[in-house]
Amino acid sequence: MGERHLITLITRWLSRQPRFSTLVRGIGDDCATVRCAGKRELLTADAFVEGVHFDRRRVSAHDAGWKSLAANISDIAAAGGIPACALVSLELPPSLGVSWLKGFYSGLLSCARRFGVAVAGGNLSRSTHFAAHIALTGKAPARLVGRSGARPGDIVAVTGRMGGSLAGLLCLKRGIRGTAARTAIRRHLHPEPRVAEGRELAKVAHALIDISDGLVHEASLLAEASKVRIVLDASAIPVHPAARSLARRLGKSPISLAAGSGEEYELLAILPRRLAGRAQLKGMGVIGFVARGRGVIGLKSAGFDHFRNG
Amino acid sequence: MGERHLITLITRWLSRQPRFSTLVRGIGDDCATVRCAGKRELLTADAFVEGVHFDRRRVSAHDAGWKSLAANISDIAAAGGIPACALVSLELPPSLGVSWLKGFYSGLLSCARRFGVAVAGGNLSRSTHFAAHIALTGKAPARLVGRSGARPGDIVAVTGRMGGSLAGLLCLKRGIRGTAARTAIRRHLHPEPRVAEGRELAKVAHALIDISDGLVHEASLLAEASKVRIVLDASAIPVHPAARSLARRLGKSPISLAAGSGEEYELLAILPRRLAGRAQLKGMGVIGFVARGRGVIGLKSAGFDHFRNG
Repeated sequence: MGERHLITLITRWLSRQPRFSTLVRGIGDDCATVRCAGKRELLTADAFVEGVHFDRRRVSAHDAGWKSLAANISDIAAAGGIPACALVSLELPPSLGVSWLKGFYSGLLSCARRFGVAVAGGNLSRSTHFAAHIALTGKAPARLVGRSGARPGDIVAVTGRMGGSLAGLLCLKRGIRGTAARTAIRRHLHPEPRVAEGRELAKVAHALIDISDGLVHEASLLAEASKVRIVLDASAIPVHPAARSLARRLGKSPISLAAGSGEEYELLAILPRRLAGRAQLKGMGVIGFVARGRGVIGLKSAGFDHFRNG
Repeated sequence: MGERHLITLITRWLSRQPRFSTLVRGIGDDCATVRCAGKRELLTADAFVEGVHFDRRRVSAHDAGWKSLAANISDIAAAGGIPACALVSLELPPSLGVSWLKGFYSGLLSCARRFGVAVAGGNLSRSTHFAAHIALTGKAPARLVGRSGARPGDIVAVTGRMGGSLAGLLCLKRGIRGTAARTAIRRHLHPEPRVAEGRELAKVAHALIDISDGLVHEASLLAEASKVRIVLDASAIPVHPAARSLARRLGKSPISLAAGSGEEYELLAILPRRLAGRAQLKGMGVIGFVARGRGVIGLKSAGFDHFRNG
């Protein structure tokens, strides 16, 4: 049973709730938007499960702590918000020592400090594995932005360079060392969510999503929510230098690393076409455009010239 | 490594955070209190983990869904708040069918409807077991109440009758049937958090906690946070009729069922002594008093007469 199918089902079940004045926008974006004391607030939850999201033999406690909060902060960034308060619900296996837990909190709290997040408390539970389920609140931007606002004619832009995280994960798994591997592994384990960029983008973007599960996958979620087709120019995707230099050793093309890399925590923004130049000036990569239709396709099959001249 | 020791450590680590204007009161109570748009908001998180908190062979999906949200709502009740918006972060094992998940959401959403909670979204993760980590926001009461305000001379009161939940759990485990068992099992699987009572109590109570982990255990947490001794009159603890009638078959005394029963989701309130009569009028049981010292003791060793005449 695929995750997307399950989310479709859960979305249907949740849509049968009574209308609540507290709920501005529920399931379907990186964050929910709720009303708190008359103002909009962002809410998001994410999980970091041993054996699924990380391997405790290969990831330090500090990195696990940093990354588990960074993933949530990235969701707030993708809503153009400012992260505020976190709750940390942990599952702890008997094999976990206090020193590991201390390292985890040290990483989590350094990420919290870096992004101005207050860790307000949480919960502890026994378990057979380690898992961190973090819920995070955020201040909502004046203008709501989500996945569903893309329109034909818009451009597709990304912050940062892709592929480093996946390259780092593969280096970790295969024990590859060296300078590029260290850079890529750090990119995988110590992501810097794009909060400042998200706040700027939320002022102008038609749609916004964070790249937590691969560029093409996230583009397809956005296309589905917006009921449009996203046309990507693979050759325009900014590739992380470490991914480029490691690609051959990893047996992958730089583009496939960049297109498929999860946990980049960069932002994919859908912008009005007139902002293409400004996006490039700000260091974003313009990697495609929005068309009528559905799904995500590579540029060649959709007509490169149309994009360039259109 | 005990949970209390871990919580002490985590409290210490969190106390080294910078001061945040968003954080009114962090770890140490049933809920955290944060500031949202200038107003106080409650935040709480709780987990419901297969194999730890329930057994999927014995608990229906609907009951699991109800109970996992009810536990969070009870935390908001213990802060005197009004529950508002929930995020549901699930771990799903491959063996879990869609019909089970549908039942889970059906129970969760019926609990949400009953208490006016909007389910705003959440997260899905693969796992080896089922777990539901729920975060819940709530509207804070005008007057903050937590675990630390008990003072010598106060009285100890409880809502409801104790022991039913533990009796129900034991009936489930041992396959005991019959009317009393059915009542006790329902009490265990379908708790009704005391939101209305919590709101009333928050106006006058010196301290408040919910009974999610046994009356005596919760009293000891409250005594520790308030730096007082809590003296309980075991004979005054209201025993649930189903617990009383099942006690012999379960090989327990009614009092031991009532004192040790977790997941009651009743409230234990520390009230000024002058309110003892009013508490009784409202159907609460007055079960002890607060003295100088530390810990929880039974009434006999502390002087029954002192309590009655004091």
